Amino acid sequence: MEEQQIFVRMAIKAWDTQIGRADKFFSSVSDESMFKEVAPGKNRIIYLLGHLIVANDSMISIFGLGERKYAHLEEAFMTHPDKSDLDMPEISVLRNDWAESNRILSDYFSKLTTGEWMSRHTVMTDEDFARDPGRNKLSVLLNRTNHVAYHLGQLVLA
Amino acid sequence: MEEQQIFVRMAIKAWDTQIGRADKFFSSVSDESMFKEVAPGKNRIIYLLGHLIVANDSMISIFGLGERKYAHLEEAFMTHPDKSDLDMPEISVLRNDWAESNRILSDYFSKLTTGEWMSRHTVMTDEDFARDPGRNKLSVLLNRTNHVAYHLGQLVLA
Repeated sequence: MEEQQIFVRMAIKAWDTQIGRADKFFSSVSDESMFKEVAPGKNRIIYLLGHLIVANDSMISIFGLGERKYAHLEEAFMTHPDKSDLDMPEISVLRNDWAESNRILSDYFSKLTTGEWMSRHTVMTDEDFARDPGRNKLSVLLNRTNHVAYHLGQLVLA
Repeated sequence: MEEQQIFVRMAIKAWDTQIGRADKFFSSVSDESMFKEVAPGKNRIIYLLGHLIVANDSMISIFGLGERKYAHLEEAFMTHPDKSDLDMPEISVLRNDWAESNRILSDYFSKLTTGEWMSRHTVMTDEDFARDPGRNKLSVLLNRTNHVAYHLGQLVLA
């Protein structure tokens, strides 16, 4: 396997850092506390857990790597806001999904070559990509990393 | 274009995106609302504004580019938590500092070459850098970008 270039490893490391922090946070929250809001009237912790699983998992299809695994969580945790009275999985199931989705993504990330990271993702047309080669898979990873950090900032307030 | 160079532009673009969002947020907040807490008992908006100025400005010295300009804000917005009863500048001054610090940083960022971005920063020893060349200036920018996203997630709750 071609070795990943330094900047790819940097981007993956930044991802790992944010996921590690989020993981530490979720692990520290008891099942009952999962229903706490991050601030009065705002999203509950359980919603943000599901939301991050869905948002992160979507990279699998955006990158064209295969079927994403947590599409069934999209309705309750992405399409609709929290407290929409939609069915949510048991907390233990969601905790497993979180851990499993992180493992799946790490595995994909470690196997992508630098050239693959720098190639266009499935949501881009060839023409758009020719105009802006910076809109590649790695830029999606940078955005998703910031997305984790954004919600982590909210979670720690709970 | 060389892959590394594209990556530098991607990282700066991710920075610009987060700073742009934070800027839009702060612009939308009235002077009186600057004293609102992001959640009950948590940091006030004004504190996070000063905090981001200090954290971002510190890149100038970490990168060895020159004197940082907002070291005088460090006591009130970084060393001590919010509501420590320390003097804070007028809000209008802080708004100007925010805008000015973003201009200064953008200017520096646009002038750094790819090689400079990939070189070690002043907080690293040569030996540490030799062990992990991913701990370069660009990795600091990635971290600071996530730091902006983290606090932006909190700010929008206010």
